[in-house]
Amino acid sequence: MSDFLELFIKQLQSPTLGFLIGGIVVASFGSQLAIPDSIYRFITFFLLLKIGLTGGIAIRKSNLAEIFLPALAAIFLGIIIVLIARYTLAKLPGIKVADAVATGGLFGAVSGSTLAAVLPQLDTAGVGYEPWTAALYPFMDIPALVTAIVVASVYLSNHGDKSSGKVEIWPIVKESLQSSAVTALLLGLALGIFTKPEPVYETFFNPLFRGFLSVMMIIMGMEAAQRMNELRKVAQWYAVYAFIAPFVHGFLAFGLGLVIHQLTGFSYGGCVVLAVIAASSSDISGPPTLRAGIPSANPSAYIGASTAIGTPVAIALCIPLFIGIAEILPK
Amino acid sequence: MSDFLELFIKQLQSPTLGFLIGGIVVASFGSQLAIPDSIYRFITFFLLLKIGLTGGIAIRKSNLAEIFLPALAAIFLGIIIVLIARYTLAKLPGIKVADAVATGGLFGAVSGSTLAAVLPQLDTAGVGYEPWTAALYPFMDIPALVTAIVVASVYLSNHGDKSSGKVEIWPIVKESLQSSAVTALLLGLALGIFTKPEPVYETFFNPLFRGFLSVMMIIMGMEAAQRMNELRKVAQWYAVYAFIAPFVHGFLAFGLGLVIHQLTGFSYGGCVVLAVIAASSSDISGPPTLRAGIPSANPSAYIGASTAIGTPVAIALCIPLFIGIAEILPK
Amino acid sequence: MSDFLELFIKQLQSPTLGFLIGGIVVASFGSQLAIPDSIYRFITFFLLLKIGLTGGIAIRKSNLAEIFLPALAAIFLGIIIVLIARYTLAKLPGIKVADAVATGGLFGAVSGSTLAAVLPQLDTAGVGYEPWTAALYPFMDIPALVTAIVVASVYLSNHGDKSSGKVEIWPIVKESLQSSAVTALLLGLALGIFTKPEPVYETFFNPLFRGFLSVMMIIMGMEAAQRMNELRKVAQWYAVYAFIAPFVHGFLAFGLGLVIHQLTGFSYGGCVVLAVIAASSSDISGPPTLRAGIPSANPSAYIGASTAIGTPVAIALCIPLFIGIAEILPK
Repeated sequence: MSDFLELFIKQLQSPTLGFLIGGIVVASFGSQLAIPDSIYRFITFFLLLKIGLTGGIAIRKSNLAEIFLPALAAIFLGIIIVLIARYTLAKLPGIKVADAVATGGLFGAVSGSTLAAVLPQLDTAGVGYEPWTAALYPFMDIPALVTAIVVASVYLSNHGDKSSGKVEIWPIVKESLQSSAVTALLLGLALGIFTKPEPVYETFFNPLFRGFLSVMMIIMGMEAAQRMNELRKVAQWYAVYAFIAPFVHGFLAFGLGLVIHQLTGFSYGGCVVLAVIAASSSDISGPPTLRAGIPSANPSAYIGASTAIGTPVAIALCIPLFIGIAEILPK
Repeated sequence: MSDFLELFIKQLQSPTLGFLIGGIVVASFGSQLAIPDSIYRFITFFLLLKIGLTGGIAIRKSNLAEIFLPALAAIFLGIIIVLIARYTLAKLPGIKVADAVATGGLFGAVSGSTLAAVLPQLDTAGVGYEPWTAALYPFMDIPALVTAIVVASVYLSNHGDKSSGKVEIWPIVKESLQSSAVTALLLGLALGIFTKPEPVYETFFNPLFRGFLSVMMIIMGMEAAQRMNELRKVAQWYAVYAFIAPFVHGFLAFGLGLVIHQLTGFSYGGCVVLAVIAASSSDISGPPTLRAGIPSANPSAYIGASTAIGTPVAIALCIPLFIGIAEILPK
Repeated sequence: MSDFLELFIKQLQSPTLGFLIGGIVVASFGSQLAIPDSIYRFITFFLLLKIGLTGGIAIRKSNLAEIFLPALAAIFLGIIIVLIARYTLAKLPGIKVADAVATGGLFGAVSGSTLAAVLPQLDTAGVGYEPWTAALYPFMDIPALVTAIVVASVYLSNHGDKSSGKVEIWPIVKESLQSSAVTALLLGLALGIFTKPEPVYETFFNPLFRGFLSVMMIIMGMEAAQRMNELRKVAQWYAVYAFIAPFVHGFLAFGLGLVIHQLTGFSYGGCVVLAVIAASSSDISGPPTLRAGIPSANPSAYIGASTAIGTPVAIALCIPLFIGIAEILPK
């Protein structure tokens, strides 16, 4: 137990987390510092393309059968996380069902930045993981968004909202695949699998990854601090949910990962990645998809909860927590 | 012959080309991925400044007399490519002379991205070239634009378009030299010749070159796919011309290069660079110059042909073709 | 003396200066080259964060007592530079007091780019300096801006400008600390002191520093050339002052630095940094603060003088001058 605490505290001192907290502090003091939006979008693209390339290069060299069970687990988690919100958060006093389901969709969907943050910390901690784990992203992201929109639409049409007619699933899947985040990841995967991008990977994408990630953490910290005000305007249950949910989702995923570990030898590091993408909530591609898919839900509720609390908790607490657990598990 | 085919296919697998095709595929599937315009402009600036610096550092150390014949060839090619369009494309049914001449001007002018793409591929293939070859860019670019505007204006004033009065050549040259693409290249050349930029070249411009080039290729691929629609609206001859012209211009230039090779020992790699800049069509500086210089020409025709077909053909087919030829020539 | 001249000329050939002059030349020839504003803002952020990180990592390992006297000198210099402008420039014919005091405030405040330029040149010249010297920035910057606004307000309220009521100092200090430039520097300092950013520092901030600095120099050169026109519209005394002031302020600071050198062993390189930040004039954070604080002053006067003449003089002449002096001083 004291070993675990020590490892946990060591993770808390990582630069990734430092930059996130730096961003929160800077924005809390009302600084005029702002990273231009075009830079933010380029960094997002860079990080996801790089993660995709890493995964693609790995997939080119690996046995694809391995990915089957973890991908199935990712799909299951994406769906179940939305249903958890539907049957817990939505039942709380003062919470509208559409808002709760949208929140569940965002927490089921995946954050590219959080995924970007866990990988170098696993490297630093020396915890091995299958390099294709980044490819699990869309397997959790898309089912979560689809489930949230379907569940919300069914509920709303049963409760007299005539505007939401029959829900078509394919457009949601398509929109999700066409979103800039998922496209960048899939493009990287395809380039990693079908071309030989090693020269450009070694001179550009790999060396600059930690740097752009640190800038991204500052941006996300500033964003979290700014969203905090929006969150104050909605029911406090969102804040409570956003704090607890990453742990619940993470432990669920970590447990499923350990089952696959027993069955097929899926690594502990892979279990951490699965747990962290389950703990994460979508910051880039999720919000516009949900805004379009569940127009009656209140973005202040679901985006506020996710950005102001969910993401910092996932990065600052869940990443060190699950890496710490992986380190004390019997090898 | 089978040697050549093998080398050709190997070039097709290069990461540069992979990123270009990736961009085409992504845009064809309607992805919302977009690289912000400010990032695109910075990358263009970075690539051309770097190419200029490389050339300038090389010129500082080389015998300038060598550049005379290749520069003369570049000027000749810039002019002749426009005249080819005037006496072939413009004679085809349903083609307006002004549009054809503008297309010729764009194909005679030079693409900084295509130039950026050929250099690392020559390095990878181990085909040597004079490092000052990048300095040939303006020698072909400016004569092509000037010739196109002069030819179009003479034609239009002979055929009753009263708006185009006497053509002044100096403003076209000036506008071309002041364009951001040519400025960045010349600035790099001057800094390479007159200062000692090696510390910043080795830590920044050289290591990041391949990476920014790959991002540029994605952008150009997406742009090509988007322009394809515009091209569909104009006569199909533009598509045919845009496919064939890079080869014709490239072989013409390669042949001239071989003559200079016989006369002065100009390298085979230098012949490839000359062929590729002749095969390329201007994507950055050319369009605005032509839009201002030949206002009656239809941009959908010339920009569509160049961006949607000319540039992908030059990068994806002509670069591997001419490198393959250079590799099988007797040393 | 000839030693000094030789060292001075060698500094003039540095790439940093070459890129600055390149930017001036490019803009003078009317080029359309422009670095997008978002890139400029990101590079500013990057440079100041990196300088802060360097300083923070150094402070973590150093004896903080050392910084006391140089910080006191920086505060004194920030105040005295404004008072110099009040009692020299403001007395000249055709000069309004508010404009003169605003000019003094800008010259007392600090330029992040100039600070970024001197550090690698000290490294190249092999002149050692305390790595925490970058932390002197806000100690000079804030007192200068506060003094300028207070002096101008007192003058204006004594001379019948009823609009400027009682001056409150705290809002000026706060605005200055919240400015993006000072925030980025302080954020870097804090991250350097409290986290362990070495992995991201070594792979990102340190290697890219010289490159982004060179791009920044091109931007500043272009900006200087463009501001030159504005400067022509105001009294010529501004140009004279902007040329002389960097030397006066620099020598004053260098002298104070030498006194601290005698007292505590403050390095010659540290004296150069103190002299150069005194010679520099604020280009990022100063202008908006002064515009808000002294609304009746004419920005063409103070920004023109600072950007078109003050900054190029500080970078192109004062940096080589003070490094040259430091090199010939007895060790």
